[in-house]
Amino acid sequence: MFPEQYDVIVVGGGHAGAEAAAAAANMGSKTLLVTMNLQTIGQMSCNPAMGGIAKGQIVREIDALGGYSGIVTDKSAIQFKMLNKSKGPAMWSPRAQSDRMRFAEEWRLALENTPNCDFYQEMVSGLLVENNRVIGVRTSLGLEIRGKAVVLTNGTFLNGLIHIGEKQFGGGRAGERAATGITEQLRDFGFESGRMKTGTPPRVDGRSLDYSAMIPQPGDERPEKFSYLDTPVLQRQRDCHMSHTSAKVHDLLREGFDRSPMFNGRIKSIGPRYCPSIEDKIDRFADKDSHQLFVEPEGWNTVEVYVNGFSTSLPEDVQFKALKSVKGFESVKFFRPGYAIEYDYFPPTQLKHTLETKLVENLYFAGQINGTTGYEEAASQGLMAGINAHLRLNEKDAFILQRDEAYIGVLIDDLITKGTEEPYRMFTSRAEYRTLLRQDNADLRLTPKSFDIGLASKERLKRMEEKERKSDAFVNFFKDTSVLPEAINPILERLDSALVKQSDKMFKVFSRPKVKMEHMLELEPVSGFVEDNDLNREVLEQTEIQVKYSGYIQKEKNNADKLQRLENVKIPENFDYFKLKSLSFEAREKLSAIQPVTIAQAARVSGVNPSDISVLLVYLGR
Amino acid sequence: MFPEQYDVIVVGGGHAGAEAAAAAANMGSKTLLVTMNLQTIGQMSCNPAMGGIAKGQIVREIDALGGYSGIVTDKSAIQFKMLNKSKGPAMWSPRAQSDRMRFAEEWRLALENTPNCDFYQEMVSGLLVENNRVIGVRTSLGLEIRGKAVVLTNGTFLNGLIHIGEKQFGGGRAGERAATGITEQLRDFGFESGRMKTGTPPRVDGRSLDYSAMIPQPGDERPEKFSYLDTPVLQRQRDCHMSHTSAKVHDLLREGFDRSPMFNGRIKSIGPRYCPSIEDKIDRFADKDSHQLFVEPEGWNTVEVYVNGFSTSLPEDVQFKALKSVKGFESVKFFRPGYAIEYDYFPPTQLKHTLETKLVENLYFAGQINGTTGYEEAASQGLMAGINAHLRLNEKDAFILQRDEAYIGVLIDDLITKGTEEPYRMFTSRAEYRTLLRQDNADLRLTPKSFDIGLASKERLKRMEEKERKSDAFVNFFKDTSVLPEAINPILERLDSALVKQSDKMFKVFSRPKVKMEHMLELEPVSGFVEDNDLNREVLEQTEIQVKYSGYIQKEKNNADKLQRLENVKIPENFDYFKLKSLSFEAREKLSAIQPVTIAQAARVSGVNPSDISVLLVYLGR
Repeated sequence: MFPEQYDVIVVGGGHAGAEAAAAAANMGSKTLLVTMNLQTIGQMSCNPAMGGIAKGQIVREIDALGGYSGIVTDKSAIQFKMLNKSKGPAMWSPRAQSDRMRFAEEWRLALENTPNCDFYQEMVSGLLVENNRVIGVRTSLGLEIRGKAVVLTNGTFLNGLIHIGEKQFGGGRAGERAATGITEQLRDFGFESGRMKTGTPPRVDGRSLDYSAMIPQPGDERPEKFSYLDTPVLQRQRDCHMSHTSAKVHDLLREGFDRSPMFNGRIKSIGPRYCPSIEDKIDRFADKDSHQLFVEPEGWNTVEVYVNGFSTSLPEDVQFKALKSVKGFESVKFFRPGYAIEYDYFPPTQLKHTLETKLVENLYFAGQINGTTGYEEAASQGLMAGINAHLRLNEKDAFILQRDEAYIGVLIDDLITKGTEEPYRMFTSRAEYRTLLRQDNADLRLTPKSFDIGLASKERLKRMEEKERKSDAFVNFFKDTSVLPEAINPILERLDSALVKQSDKMFKVFSRPKVKMEHMLELEPVSGFVEDNDLNREVLEQTEIQVKYSGYIQKEKNNADKLQRLENVKIPENFDYFKLKSLSFEAREKLSAIQPVTIAQAARVSGVNPSDISVLLVYLGR
Repeated sequence: MFPEQYDVIVVGGGHAGAEAAAAAANMGSKTLLVTMNLQTIGQMSCNPAMGGIAKGQIVREIDALGGYSGIVTDKSAIQFKMLNKSKGPAMWSPRAQSDRMRFAEEWRLALENTPNCDFYQEMVSGLLVENNRVIGVRTSLGLEIRGKAVVLTNGTFLNGLIHIGEKQFGGGRAGERAATGITEQLRDFGFESGRMKTGTPPRVDGRSLDYSAMIPQPGDERPEKFSYLDTPVLQRQRDCHMSHTSAKVHDLLREGFDRSPMFNGRIKSIGPRYCPSIEDKIDRFADKDSHQLFVEPEGWNTVEVYVNGFSTSLPEDVQFKALKSVKGFESVKFFRPGYAIEYDYFPPTQLKHTLETKLVENLYFAGQINGTTGYEEAASQGLMAGINAHLRLNEKDAFILQRDEAYIGVLIDDLITKGTEEPYRMFTSRAEYRTLLRQDNADLRLTPKSFDIGLASKERLKRMEEKERKSDAFVNFFKDTSVLPEAINPILERLDSALVKQSDKMFKVFSRPKVKMEHMLELEPVSGFVEDNDLNREVLEQTEIQVKYSGYIQKEKNNADKLQRLENVKIPENFDYFKLKSLSFEAREKLSAIQPVTIAQAARVSGVNPSDISVLLVYLGR
């Protein structure tokens, strides 16, 4: 049936699986994507949106590396917002609402247009493993498909169990079957597994809502986009709307608590802390009598609407009664109720930095199977697993992003070093060097690296180099060019900023907090330079950030360099910590389990103290 | 949850369910469509095409009545062909290839834009029945939804069992769950149920095919369309391709026969006779060493391809090996294997002409649940069930189409009078009056009737009336206008038709077989009339048919009128045939079971002889 051996077999076609397949195939691996249903490739299981704080940066990083999530999002977007624009640029976070159907369709077409990427529809129920090395997969129909590497991206499907009120039934998503067999086999191989939980809110009929009672949430006036390539910019957008729960809504919800699987002990696993169900919110924040709800359209044309913030597994009638008491929802009609889902995951400390498992060679995990939550977290892991599976098969060095290079580096390092006992979500606060990890410079940070390993295209690299060249030149222009008091003072006066007494370098004036690029552009030499050099919006933004935040950026770079020294101190593979009696016993245990590859990683393992690190450094001869 | 009572609840969102919901809602019934998965509304389960011989006529009839199948097909079509154009107009049959994703999307959007139509995603597992009258449905989560009428359109989902080789598993379609509960409950109410079987071929990767080894099957040069409304005409089209099986392919398939669920007794139920599996074909027609395969693209952009003619439930490896031996398929890659599916149906003799069940009031069945096969057959039943559910709730007369009025009339009368023990498919040969039931005149036949009951729109009626008025005027023009020999003879000479000696009515010349509208248009008065009256393609076609086939049409109308007399002799409800001792015992039994409503219907019941009809006529005082 599959007479040839594949290089990489990807199991699952969600965000992680789709990126993994695209990356491996684009790098030249003969790749097979196996999914239970070819019509649900690229399906957004939860809300119809990509990006957001820290997550938007990840999508930009995926794009900079040559992944598809940014392109697919741009092509299917119905609204775009740059969040946190009032804060420093490290906090700027792109976010887009997508047309759910279009998003899946664009993913499907993108993969179909990827050379080396084959497809097969079937449930994978087991792995073929020989001498602790994976050699393929087995389907539920008994078919054996050979592959040199396998990437598992099973999402919420592994023994998925859906809960609504007191009812529970097997399923990977509402209306879709669960997947079985893999967990059991991996446990036999010695893997530890656990259960996690996530949930989704009701979807309702937009025709039944009174939007006049809600607050419109329009997109940006000048929408940007995710991809550094030439994807379309939105010409029109659809509004979201905001409403709020009330004390009355909370009371109605509380009436169902005795039938809640969250509170009656039926759901034992832990859900995402920062994306809690509405019952969780009113339980944990009992003093708050209102929570925000975001009413998100599901697409350009459909009337279906997603009630973000109202995730719940309460009984349907309770969901309905409570939601009807929300302003604007008085006549709401349900398309389907919210629900919770429990699924198997594998504590990610069982992985290497490449996302390869420590126990089975050439077997990679990506996405919710690693205990993460979020489309962006999943997609980026898929991308990295796909890349590394390909590199390893071709005996190339692993592709590992450091914590000061990418949120993706932070994500994976956190997962494999610290593990996670609740669904892991990215935040800017998780990154030590977030001033470096901005959405505007993901291409500068990552595209050259990805080009070097053969993923990012020549075109991508050229675009990035041109942007870099032009913004460097523009920064130098500000450094080199002086401005006379009579030219700049009228502007400074208007901005209520101290006037200058004598000619000064433009860079210095521009560095003042109140002075923005738009003001500098009022100066004829500046606007002349922009015109002469054909500088676009991206270059202006990049230049402004380089000028105004150069101090912060430099400081953080120095800090990162310091850490880098510890990152460079490698620990030998299979290091025997138990022979180092001067390590604390806890450190010996934890380090043996995690097997960090550098001193810096060892220092991040929970339970390892600075004194343990000193012992290690001494032993390693530093 | 659903505090109000619905008028009509439709269970299922396939062709039947979607038409049922649209019809009931458009007529003004508060309608709820309940489906296991809102993302699969309007899903084409089998090949991506609508229409074909007799089926195309049904789609035209659905459109003439105000259903949506024609509109959805036009909007999603990638190729259009009028089949049998070389034969008489009764045989002309429109057929379109659809973009499978677009088709489902257009259905979903059409329904969303239908007022009074609500949606809910859940599995219906039972009916609420009180005093033999349905009053709602119960979902698998235990929700009760009240409705005055219920239309069941469960397709292949009721206890669906999928077979591939020696493997079998529950499912309603590949990758989708089966539905349970309804059959068991209906049997408790006294319904008889049976099992049927259908199948589908493998879907493959178009990139792996060698189209140069196949015969292109392009669409029509001047594509028409299905809807009588203003839907778009195709500006570009995609080709299909033809290939053939060979003796070698058949031998390879035969090697798997011992593992075939068709031949080893695992599948007991009967499949569609005229849409057999490839193994069935080579078994039944052992002398034929080649069968046609049609390679149909799944859409505008996707590389997925449907291998029409290769439906099979043989083991995957056998499917694969055999297909690889087909010309052009040497390097074929599978997207998914073909499979067979068994499902529950209810012998349709348990229904009235309205598709209401005889046992439970206000309960309607439509589509495969009635033992039919085909999208068009399903859609038309859904439409008629939706219409009649609405009419009955509003105490209006039933809407029943006679056998000389529509293929839909033939279909339903056949089903409820004769029943079916194998999947029932429409053919032109099933219609006694097929010369009347043409694709060109479905609007003239049906739109006024549908307008009268409140379904077809005013616009639809006006378009039809204008077409009728214009074509009548044009026919009269040909009847009234004479042509001189010097004008017509050059044309007749070219066509090798006898010359005329003196001036004659155009109608008479036009009636000659070789003379077509295009030739008549060469005459200045004819083209002048067309221009003056702004006659479009449809009017020209209608006029040509009316002129050239007037004799046949009139003859068939007379025959139909004769039959109509028997259709008008009603038999009282619950007529006691057993008291008529002069009826044959078989007639008494069969007539008691079927309970025909007219003498004409009684005459069509199998086992009822002309002598039995005479007895009945005498008894009824005729």
